[in-house]
Amino acid sequence: MSAKRRLRSDIAYSTADRIVVRGHDLVALIGAVPLGDFAFLELKGRLPTSAESVVFNAIAVTLVEHGLTPSAISARLTYLGAPESLQAAVAAGLLGLGGRYGGTVEEAARMLQEALAGAAPGAGLREVARRVVAGHRERRVLIPGLGHPTHKGLDPRASRLFQVAAENGFAGPHVELVQLVAEEAETALSRALPVNATGAIGAIAGELEIPWQVCRGLAVIARAIGLVAHLDEERREPLAAEIWSRVDEEASEHLREGSESGSPPPAELG
Amino acid sequence: MSAKRRLRSDIAYSTADRIVVRGHDLVALIGAVPLGDFAFLELKGRLPTSAESVVFNAIAVTLVEHGLTPSAISARLTYLGAPESLQAAVAAGLLGLGGRYGGTVEEAARMLQEALAGAAPGAGLREVARRVVAGHRERRVLIPGLGHPTHKGLDPRASRLFQVAAENGFAGPHVELVQLVAEEAETALSRALPVNATGAIGAIAGELEIPWQVCRGLAVIARAIGLVAHLDEERREPLAAEIWSRVDEEASEHLREGSESGSPPPAELG
Amino acid sequence: MSAKRRLRSDIAYSTADRIVVRGHDLVALIGAVPLGDFAFLELKGRLPTSAESVVFNAIAVTLVEHGLTPSAISARLTYLGAPESLQAAVAAGLLGLGGRYGGTVEEAARMLQEALAGAAPGAGLREVARRVVAGHRERRVLIPGLGHPTHKGLDPRASRLFQVAAENGFAGPHVELVQLVAEEAETALSRALPVNATGAIGAIAGELEIPWQVCRGLAVIARAIGLVAHLDEERREPLAAEIWSRVDEEASEHLREGSESGSPPPAELG
Amino acid sequence: MSAKRRLRSDIAYSTADRIVVRGHDLVALIGAVPLGDFAFLELKGRLPTSAESVVFNAIAVTLVEHGLTPSAISARLTYLGAPESLQAAVAAGLLGLGGRYGGTVEEAARMLQEALAGAAPGAGLREVARRVVAGHRERRVLIPGLGHPTHKGLDPRASRLFQVAAENGFAGPHVELVQLVAEEAETALSRALPVNATGAIGAIAGELEIPWQVCRGLAVIARAIGLVAHLDEERREPLAAEIWSRVDEEASEHLREGSESGSPPPAELG
Repeated sequence: MSAKRRLRSDIAYSTADRIVVRGHDLVALIGAVPLGDFAFLELKGRLPTSAESVVFNAIAVTLVEHGLTPSAISARLTYLGAPESLQAAVAAGLLGLGGRYGGTVEEAARMLQEALAGAAPGAGLREVARRVVAGHRERRVLIPGLGHPTHKGLDPRASRLFQVAAENGFAGPHVELVQLVAEEAETALSRALPVNATGAIGAIAGELEIPWQVCRGLAVIARAIGLVAHLDEERREPLAAEIWSRVDEEASEHLREGSESGSPPPAELG
Repeated sequence: MSAKRRLRSDIAYSTADRIVVRGHDLVALIGAVPLGDFAFLELKGRLPTSAESVVFNAIAVTLVEHGLTPSAISARLTYLGAPESLQAAVAAGLLGLGGRYGGTVEEAARMLQEALAGAAPGAGLREVARRVVAGHRERRVLIPGLGHPTHKGLDPRASRLFQVAAENGFAGPHVELVQLVAEEAETALSRALPVNATGAIGAIAGELEIPWQVCRGLAVIARAIGLVAHLDEERREPLAAEIWSRVDEEASEHLREGSESGSPPPAELG
Repeated sequence: MSAKRRLRSDIAYSTADRIVVRGHDLVALIGAVPLGDFAFLELKGRLPTSAESVVFNAIAVTLVEHGLTPSAISARLTYLGAPESLQAAVAAGLLGLGGRYGGTVEEAARMLQEALAGAAPGAGLREVARRVVAGHRERRVLIPGLGHPTHKGLDPRASRLFQVAAENGFAGPHVELVQLVAEEAETALSRALPVNATGAIGAIAGELEIPWQVCRGLAVIARAIGLVAHLDEERREPLAAEIWSRVDEEASEHLREGSESGSPPPAELG
Repeated sequence: MSAKRRLRSDIAYSTADRIVVRGHDLVALIGAVPLGDFAFLELKGRLPTSAESVVFNAIAVTLVEHGLTPSAISARLTYLGAPESLQAAVAAGLLGLGGRYGGTVEEAARMLQEALAGAAPGAGLREVARRVVAGHRERRVLIPGLGHPTHKGLDPRASRLFQVAAENGFAGPHVELVQLVAEEAETALSRALPVNATGAIGAIAGELEIPWQVCRGLAVIARAIGLVAHLDEERREPLAAEIWSRVDEEASEHLREGSESGSPPPAELG
């Protein structure tokens, strides 16, 4: 290998007798730092203050579990075929945290971080919010972080997250902006569009100075926990084989019937 | 779909105005329960006591980060090709937590849980340990959880984990047994085979009544955090393109040379 | 990087003006060698004879499609959440080709290849088959490649594969052995246990001198094709959202009811 | 499950004694239809003509192998940790076929299909090409399918693909358009920007009436084959452990040195 550019990582190293993570001896952290704070250390390069810890753990906890989501079902179906590879079943579940799910936290955080970074000096937040709403309407794209198919009114998770952020001194400009964006969007579109949980998380991530590019990772970290719980339940009370059986039977019923009654094969589907 | 078997999950459900996880309203947990304790709730169906929380978080934290492992490099290489899919890069990294890595915690936990469950009434732990060692020698397989390629002496993480477990009342039979297995193995094989970090975690998981089938999931949960940190660093200080360039150049150098000097093509490789 | 061991790959290399695969200029293969034969070249290091081509393509084709399998459903659910990452949805589907599905071809091939490699000199195939059956019964494990939950009688794919192999001169010892194993198993267990499709593929792979460790890869290659077709259909006629909705509703119905009627939360599930 | 929308798939079904794929009995296809043609059947719902077969196989073959790509290295690193899960190692490799790699075929096909679909009636292809180039310049995005970091001149794969397409009657408007786009881009940007392999594949896919949304899937199907070959080689001549060792050592050398010389720990990295 002819080295052109030096390889360098600042996260961790290990020697014969110790592992050092972000400058801390791992042994000193074991038993002293809980998992959420360790995640903060990994992502930010330093341990959180107590206030940061409460707020960071709050947003992570919110993302862990949402019942039998497509991710959870996909993980369970994968486990049915590869029960020896729990890691693969979790991975299969995480793969669905793309644009339509995990990506929404990222988009909300990005919208807020870019709007604040690009705001004209002296521009008020109300003005920034108006521009955000106008920009999305112009490009005919949904504003991320607003509204919810199930929770029609105020998303109770969002309210609680804003309360936790405020109590700990993290109700800064990103939080204020997302609420103004919701107000402006409601005015512009004449319907209720309250900030939802992903909008609140995207805003609070900005207050914690977590870059928007990492925000999808918060959903990934949290949901990995939920998926392991679903796979443990699948082992004890399986659903996947029954889902397979029902789906396969119903979806191809018309082909089987056609076949028995001598119907022609399906036409070109390309 | 003709239902043959009812689908049932006891983990969580959501209604128009709330999400309930393991019987707790999620909103009541946000800001009150940190991520590690929430993971315990997901996996065990109840919140941990303070002692359980310290011990559970300790084993999770131990598994988060180990520098530029194959998993971290694989995640970074995936990110190079699909930077829009952070979740896919994390998934690629998790997929390597199989038999040789994540699986070792599972195997250590299984060995201890099965040995204790199958022990004859009245058998002493020393006797159980002897049978475990003899069983592995007979089947000519390595005893999981002992020894380490780098940490030749006592693994400092294992010592610390045992200390944390003891201080919190979790130095029970699984912990005692793994240490006796190490002693018996050292006697039988005449070389140092101290309990390593995965052995300690496997034992302590048993004390927390976490089934061995879930233990690989602890590694998955923890490592997902580390992988997100590596991908954030990759975005800012990329390694993957340089690794690719060096590996590709070196590995095919002999083919390129052969080609230029008119050498024959490689023979059958099947 | 201090190089300890030289990196070397003999598969392919590229220069400024060409790509060479297994000693062949790729440009000379484009338009001349079809995909199945190219796969043979990749795996075996040389192009197939016509007879090898027919047989290899036959086993690959058999593994492409089996309707709405857990893999196909999992891929579709992943696509629902991450429609921008088709590759991730295919990957999610492939992850279920583990021990219970893709692994069965591997196990059948391994059983036959190891039995033939380890047979005493001069031992007849009938004797080898008897030992194989006795060995599995002793270890109380199923014999891979025999029987099928749906195709109770002779699996029509297996019969056809054996016919194609015979017509092309590939009905050698692996094929003969798997049929004798089926006969011996039926005698020993007193029930019909015909060779199924995976048994036939495992045997024919042995005749093509494809190592058993690669056989799961044949299923992976083939099924990737089927999954892309399912995802294309999912885009045009989606199933995933409906499956999610039904599963989520049914599986948590008892929790919702319990909640409304004031029932206590679910007890510990760990 | 309360059914709201009927589940329906037209790809395949199986009964006790047969499997029917796209209206064909699978047994009739085994030994008669090679893998590439079966892939065409899966994707298009009918078998290809001879000309379609040559062209479809040509584009698929082109995408199988490109040496030690990030995908191949990632697959090998995954196999190191989970050698029991070949399918997971292939999946890890496929996950990198995102925006920067597999996505380029999709983007090229999309650009051409959308430009032709949206062209004003009577507009000449030269005019359409000019609009495509102008549109990309305006949005400041690269034109997909043009240029190549290594193959500076004409990509020999592209030339060969166009030749195969022309010989088989598939040098229609998509192929013509991509060449005009290259000419217009070269004029507008005053540098050589020949159509590369992905541009040619994207164009020819359009001629085969393969929707652009499926084109990334062609790369996935093809690359799955290459990855299995790399994993087979990894088993026999491993690279992954050496890559890990070198990368880990070099990337954390500065931390180890800092540690030994008493340097302070790394500052905040978040």
